[in-house]
Amino acid sequence: MAASTRRGTPAATARDRVPPHPELRMITLQQVLEALVDPVRRQIVRELDAAGQDLACGVIELPVSKSTATHHFHVLREAGLIRQHYVGTSRLNALRREEFEESFPGLLDALIAAPEQR
Amino acid sequence: MAASTRRGTPAATARDRVPPHPELRMITLQQVLEALVDPVRRQIVRELDAAGQDLACGVIELPVSKSTATHHFHVLREAGLIRQHYVGTSRLNALRREEFEESFPGLLDALIAAPEQR
Repeated sequence: MAASTRRGTPAATARDRVPPHPELRMITLQQVLEALVDPVRRQIVRELDAAGQDLACGVIELPVSKSTATHHFHVLREAGLIRQHYVGTSRLNALRREEFEESFPGLLDALIAAPEQR
Repeated sequence: MAASTRRGTPAATARDRVPPHPELRMITLQQVLEALVDPVRRQIVRELDAAGQDLACGVIELPVSKSTATHHFHVLREAGLIRQHYVGTSRLNALRREEFEESFPGLLDALIAAPEQR
């Protein structure tokens, strides 16, 4: 009688799963800088910006293990920089560009424009 | 005959002492973010910006010991954010605003404009 034990809302399908996202107005500059001081996380932000569309985690080639990459995406999500959602089993990522711009005017553009190498 | 042993350039006076400053074009975004991820260092930058003139280290009230404060000024100097020089025994500090703007357009303004508290 397994079915009778399933009460309340049905189990979420893969399509429904959306991890929690902070409101940008709760994010501090400290969190943003701690997220972006890591060069791999800046690479993710740059590639999402260049793509101009949602990208699956696996599409962005990073010089770290898959689990470390997952951690980096998590930190960016917690800092309000990216939005994640699932389509099927793929986790897709997008920059929260406009929301971020409202909270930190000019910061993302300045960081993306800044040269990484000298 | 101590005088005869002093050859070459005379000993620097306090007024002459200028610590080494990096060229901005050698500074990486990584160095800048590592410098500015520290809230005390951001406080120094904000106060120098607000003052609009050179400030002695001791004029800026920081929640750290004097030696830690000296370290923070050193990190900012190494990251190309401030210029230091001596007048008498006072070490004066100024933002390298224009030079920094050339190398990292918009970044300092965006960081200074960003709210520290939520």
